[in-house]
Amino acid sequence: MTTDDDILDATFAALCKHGYADLTMQSIADEFSKSKSLLHYHYDSKEDLIVTFMEHLLEGFLSEFEDDSDADPLDQLVRMAEIVVEGNEEGDEPDDVHMALLGLRAQAPYDEAIREQLVRNDRHIRDAIADIVREGIEQGQFREDVDPEQFAVVFRSAIEGAQSHDVILGDDAPTETALAGVKTLLLERLIVEGETLEGQTA
Amino acid sequence: MTTDDDILDATFAALCKHGYADLTMQSIADEFSKSKSLLHYHYDSKEDLIVTFMEHLLEGFLSEFEDDSDADPLDQLVRMAEIVVEGNEEGDEPDDVHMALLGLRAQAPYDEAIREQLVRNDRHIRDAIADIVREGIEQGQFREDVDPEQFAVVFRSAIEGAQSHDVILGDDAPTETALAGVKTLLLERLIVEGETLEGQTA
Repeated sequence: MTTDDDILDATFAALCKHGYADLTMQSIADEFSKSKSLLHYHYDSKEDLIVTFMEHLLEGFLSEFEDDSDADPLDQLVRMAEIVVEGNEEGDEPDDVHMALLGLRAQAPYDEAIREQLVRNDRHIRDAIADIVREGIEQGQFREDVDPEQFAVVFRSAIEGAQSHDVILGDDAPTETALAGVKTLLLERLIVEGETLEGQTA
Repeated sequence: MTTDDDILDATFAALCKHGYADLTMQSIADEFSKSKSLLHYHYDSKEDLIVTFMEHLLEGFLSEFEDDSDADPLDQLVRMAEIVVEGNEEGDEPDDVHMALLGLRAQAPYDEAIREQLVRNDRHIRDAIADIVREGIEQGQFREDVDPEQFAVVFRSAIEGAQSHDVILGDDAPTETALAGVKTLLLERLIVEGETLEGQTA
C-alpha cells in the first residue's frame, strides 16, 4: 500500500473508533503504522484528512459504475441500490462506512469543509445516476418520458434514506423490504415493457 | 401552556442551541421559565426528556393525518411529502426540527433509548403511510397491485432522504426537484388513471 492509502486507512479506523466529534490528528496518528511526521507532512488538519477520505470514498464508489459502461443500465441501478442500501457487510451488521458517513453528514450543518465535500459528492453521484438513466433511454430499455435528473434525485434520496434507516434502526430496520421496494420502483417507473429482474417475482 | 409543553419547548430550544452531544439537564433548565425543581421532579435525565420530546414530535406529525380521514389519499401523501421534505420554515432555511432530528438520528447507533424511540416512530409512520395507501386502493384511486407496506418503506426512505439532503447540503440541496420527483412517483406508481395533481404539469 502507498503512504496515502495507509493514511486514509488510519483516518477511517480512527473515525470508526472515536466518531468525528472526538477525532484528533493524534487519534489518527495512533492508527498509523508509519512515521507520524509523514502524516503531518501530508495533511494540516483533521478536516483535510476527512475531506480527502470522503473524496476517496466517492472515487471508489463511482469506479464501480464507470468501469462498467457495457453493463445493462437496469442492472447498474440495481447494483448501486444494493451497495448503497446494504453495503459490503455480511449479515445484519451495519456497514462501517455507512456508520462513518452518518456521523459526517450530521456534522455538515456545522462544518463548511465537510458540507462542501458532501455537495460535490452529491452532484457526482446524481450525475452518474442520470447518465445511466439516459443510457437506458437511448438503448430503448427505459421509458422516454422519464426525466433523468429528477429521477436521479428521488432514486438517490430513496437509497440513501434506506441506508440511513439501516444504520439508525439497526436490527429493526426494514432493509430487505426497502431494497425490494426500490427494485419494484425501478421496474415500474423505468422499464418500457414487462421486463423482470432475475430472482424477483413480478 | 402546560408545564409539560413548557418543558418540551425548553428541551427543543436547548437541543437547537447545543446539539445532543452537549445537551445537559442544566442547559435545558436554562431555557425553562418555571421553577427548575419542576423539571427534575418530572424527568430523571436528558434521555427521558429527549424520548418524550420525540414522542411529542411523532404525535404532532401523525395528528396531521389522523384528524383528516375524509381527505383524498393522494392529497394526504403529497402533504406528508411536503411536511417531511420542506418542513415549516419559510424560505431556504432548513427546518429547526429537521436539524434536531438529524443530530438525534446520528446518535441512535450509540444510544439505545434514542434508537428504540426512533424504531417506534418508524413503525407508526410506516403504518400511517400504508393505511393511506390501503384507503386509496379501497376507494379505487390507487392501483390494486401496489403492496402498501413495501410502498410505505420506499416512500418514507425517499422523503426522509430528501429531508436529510435539505439539512446536510443546505442551499445546494436539490429540494424542489426532490419534491417534484416524489409527486411524479406518486402519480406514476399509485394512480389508476391519468389523474394529475393540482399545479403539476403532467
